[in-house]
Amino acid sequence: MTRPHFGDALTAAMRHKQSQVVVGLDPRPERLPDELRPADGAFGDAPAAAEAIKAFNEAVVEQVAEFAVAVKPQVAFYEQLGCAGMEAYAHAIAVARAHGLMVIGDAKRNDIASTAAAYAAAHLGGADAPFASDFVADAVTINPYLGSDGVRPFLETAAATGRGVFALVKTSNRSSAELQDLDCGGAPLYEQVADLVEEWGAAYRGHEGYSCLGAVVGATYPEELVRLRGLMPHTLLLVPGFGAQGGDLDSVKGAFDADGLGAVVNSSRGIIFAWEQAPYDQAYGPGRWRDAIRAAAADMRGILWDATH
Amino acid sequence: MTRPHFGDALTAAMRHKQSQVVVGLDPRPERLPDELRPADGAFGDAPAAAEAIKAFNEAVVEQVAEFAVAVKPQVAFYEQLGCAGMEAYAHAIAVARAHGLMVIGDAKRNDIASTAAAYAAAHLGGADAPFASDFVADAVTINPYLGSDGVRPFLETAAATGRGVFALVKTSNRSSAELQDLDCGGAPLYEQVADLVEEWGAAYRGHEGYSCLGAVVGATYPEELVRLRGLMPHTLLLVPGFGAQGGDLDSVKGAFDADGLGAVVNSSRGIIFAWEQAPYDQAYGPGRWRDAIRAAAADMRGILWDATH
Repeated sequence: MTRPHFGDALTAAMRHKQSQVVVGLDPRPERLPDELRPADGAFGDAPAAAEAIKAFNEAVVEQVAEFAVAVKPQVAFYEQLGCAGMEAYAHAIAVARAHGLMVIGDAKRNDIASTAAAYAAAHLGGADAPFASDFVADAVTINPYLGSDGVRPFLETAAATGRGVFALVKTSNRSSAELQDLDCGGAPLYEQVADLVEEWGAAYRGHEGYSCLGAVVGATYPEELVRLRGLMPHTLLLVPGFGAQGGDLDSVKGAFDADGLGAVVNSSRGIIFAWEQAPYDQAYGPGRWRDAIRAAAADMRGILWDATH
Repeated sequence: MTRPHFGDALTAAMRHKQSQVVVGLDPRPERLPDELRPADGAFGDAPAAAEAIKAFNEAVVEQVAEFAVAVKPQVAFYEQLGCAGMEAYAHAIAVARAHGLMVIGDAKRNDIASTAAAYAAAHLGGADAPFASDFVADAVTINPYLGSDGVRPFLETAAATGRGVFALVKTSNRSSAELQDLDCGGAPLYEQVADLVEEWGAAYRGHEGYSCLGAVVGATYPEELVRLRGLMPHTLLLVPGFGAQGGDLDSVKGAFDADGLGAVVNSSRGIIFAWEQAPYDQAYGPGRWRDAIRAAAADMRGILWDATH
């Protein structure tokens, strides 16, 4: 493979665009702009909704391409539309790539050994994949609960293909504490997982010092985020929870390294449905939903980059 | 909904068929019978492989329907074939249902709040699903690392639709110990998860006493299995790891309740590729792969049921 290391490629894209922004492509059919919905508001079937989602994603990608380094389609919103939805997922990946955006497939996949390898083939491709899958992205999110033999197949595939993996460490939801904060020998479970992620990824670092194994750490736990940045100095962070989930600049600042790199921040609803939300609802409104999306992405880029450079 | 409670339906199927057997539909393209492969052995593309998988699953379901209570298609093996693979996954569900088998979608999905709800819609349907998804099964496996707000959407959808959920507690792989066995306040993490699963499912028990929230516990850890059966008396167990992964009758006996119910045991490769393995390779061989599959399913049913009744 002549593709560069994932950590180097992501870092280069961040420098080039002066951006740490990831836009979540989480298209909820019921929230698509009126313009893309049938006159009575309700789609007749899943294929009709999937077609509208394709058109919506094309518009979103077009508006945000200048300001974001990557998009992060959330597979759940495609999977709930069955086979037609999965086609729309493949389409989202293709459209984003065509606009020069990297793609992080938010799949949170996990399984053991050869089954994990099948998921890796599905989302990262590689020489061992039986065929070129429609779902191959630049990176994929995974769940680490099964331990190293559930992580290694993803990691090895990522390393061989110039792609990346982000393992859940501390998630942004309220109940993440129920398991992730359990005291395991004096430290919370998520810190143990952080240590494992840093260790698992150690053999896979690029020129920029970051491994192709990254970590997901929610913006909603800013203190933990600072601590985790310190525990995982060679691990790229993917930080969801900015915007709709309550995270703001202060919440996420701790994710970046001294150069303002090493982390990307995701916003989904705050950007793709910006025309419904302050301040963009006043400035644009439903008729100018494309402009609202563009403005929200541009603003997020500026807020984050300016505060860290 | 007039569908019965999932725990009652599964128990009724077990009594009716005198079986605790689940057959894993994990079709690896490279291991399909020669009869279903092109003359040169290699499929030309993913759609061609997906078509062969459909034919293979039809044959497997036909042979095992008399002896198994359910099939468990592993989504990873379909997902790696892209959109064509996901159509084969939907087909596997439909074929199994047509033969009176329950279907446990082995998806190990997980996410938070409204995103978990989208996955629940994808795999369990329900009134909040935007459309009827192609992937709706009788139950789905999930990963509990995100805590209750990642579990509740699945559980509520399952309860409302007469379907089920199996949360990972102690997985069958070697490295499951890395996280799951960490000492959390005097007990391993997996026991803490077991307590949570029993608690989360408490409000959702059927007439037979079992919740629609079950647990996945690997056959490869027999002592832990006994202990977990005790910790989760109202939780159905799904026990993978029988056969190819090394679990045998002695390993899984501890999963059942006093009536020999309350747990189902999965075998994938040991049944669907039986013609390649002792003793079925000698008795049948590649030309009689259907008979080998039938014999392996029948034997597994008898071994488990006779030892527990």
